[in-house]
Amino acid sequence: MENKLLLNGTRVATDIKEQLKGRVEELTSRGVTPCLATVLVGDDPSSATYVKMKGNACEKLGILSKRIHLPAEITTEDLLKTIHELNEDEAVHGILLQHPVPSHIDERAAFEAIDIEKDVDGVTSWGFGQTSFGFGSYPSCTPAAIMAILNYYDVPIEGKHAVIVGRSPILGKPVSMLLLNRNATVTTCHSRTQNLPEIVKQADIVVAAVGKPKFIKGDWIKPGAVVMDAGYNPGNIGDADYEECEKNAGAITPVPGGVGPVTISMLLKHTVDAAEKKLNQQ
Amino acid sequence: MENKLLLNGTRVATDIKEQLKGRVEELTSRGVTPCLATVLVGDDPSSATYVKMKGNACEKLGILSKRIHLPAEITTEDLLKTIHELNEDEAVHGILLQHPVPSHIDERAAFEAIDIEKDVDGVTSWGFGQTSFGFGSYPSCTPAAIMAILNYYDVPIEGKHAVIVGRSPILGKPVSMLLLNRNATVTTCHSRTQNLPEIVKQADIVVAAVGKPKFIKGDWIKPGAVVMDAGYNPGNIGDADYEECEKNAGAITPVPGGVGPVTISMLLKHTVDAAEKKLNQQ
Repeated sequence: MENKLLLNGTRVATDIKEQLKGRVEELTSRGVTPCLATVLVGDDPSSATYVKMKGNACEKLGILSKRIHLPAEITTEDLLKTIHELNEDEAVHGILLQHPVPSHIDERAAFEAIDIEKDVDGVTSWGFGQTSFGFGSYPSCTPAAIMAILNYYDVPIEGKHAVIVGRSPILGKPVSMLLLNRNATVTTCHSRTQNLPEIVKQADIVVAAVGKPKFIKGDWIKPGAVVMDAGYNPGNIGDADYEECEKNAGAITPVPGGVGPVTISMLLKHTVDAAEKKLNQQ
Repeated sequence: MENKLLLNGTRVATDIKEQLKGRVEELTSRGVTPCLATVLVGDDPSSATYVKMKGNACEKLGILSKRIHLPAEITTEDLLKTIHELNEDEAVHGILLQHPVPSHIDERAAFEAIDIEKDVDGVTSWGFGQTSFGFGSYPSCTPAAIMAILNYYDVPIEGKHAVIVGRSPILGKPVSMLLLNRNATVTTCHSRTQNLPEIVKQADIVVAAVGKPKFIKGDWIKPGAVVMDAGYNPGNIGDADYEECEKNAGAITPVPGGVGPVTISMLLKHTVDAAEKKLNQQ
């Protein structure tokens, strides 16, 4: 077996942010400060923490963070109004609506309302379609992070069999498409999949995107396979059983310090990309 | 083994068209005649035949066929202008741009220019994204036809392993998503896939969407598997080796008379859907 490789996401994120710094300075010197609007609805503590982390990460890099906090009781209509205002706001380059919103709100309608040019979190169906067809500007951030880590560590993708466990619109589906576009053979699994362990055992690359702690077992991992854990469950626990998977894996992302920090840096990168794109169009 | 089932597409298409007749009459009586605009660029004989077949199928049902034939030398810009005019034309409910266009034209740009409300052929990235997220109005017609045949013959999909051979934007990718949304476990294969026969041998449902005659061999088919052949190669030859695959398959679509006729009827259905939607919005 090859040497075990720890896919350190913190290092990838640091490198990406280092590269962004110069770009933010250049933009600012040209009179444009990149700005990410974050929209938080209600008072869910985890969501509040995530939004705060994202806002703080922006500010550390010199990206403006426009933080909008709406009451849990807001209607879909009023949320849409807020999003439309952000779409119109020339100073805002990216919009992030923190998932999940309270259940009485039509979250999909709210996501779809985000202008494609400002969809830096990659949540719209149009953005997903563009990503799938290979010309999207802003793929969903967690899938983009997974690809960035694979690229950073030169993990071979072409011709490999990637098995994705999960099929959400912002994770399982887009990462399936990104890996497919990089010439992996892609199997997408989910709660109705039969013989999941047998399917995962075939994978050269496993993406755990299921949202259940330690769901992916160590003996499902083919010796030498690459395990990308996109899960982040309470208590800093991933979707893969790290201790057990690590025994078989050729490379693996830890939780925390794996996919998570790179996800935030992709959000920052997309915001800077959007600001540059806008400046170049003027 | 179960009884062999011939998945007769001609019968499915006849049923769909029968149902559409009443809807077209109802629309016409309310003053709206559904209208499909077909755009053919250049003089490729196969393309010309396809467009003609589609136009004739419209007229047989009382759907207007607005046939636009542009010279092969047209620029991307002029083609976009034509599409924008059709987008604006209140009398046109659906737009079909016949693939392929001459190579000097940016076909993707032309597809993307089609208004989502008129994208009855399901070629835009936005339409694909909507389909993938489960709320698209007009999935790409061949994938929609495959699903219609599976539904017609009550082929179980949930929990089954579907292997798609091909990953084009109008066939392999959308059919992967439609099957995934119906709770199949989906593997998408392509030219860079390693051990393709071994992967196909695992499939409960095989979709041949590769564009190469008799590419899928009989001994790749697990006994009892369902073979959906979306290929249509010169000489009426499918992408699956019918005679050989039929020996193992539990059910199989013939070529011709399988997916092809249903594809056209889905185009007609989407055009009628679009006309009804427009009328109901007035």
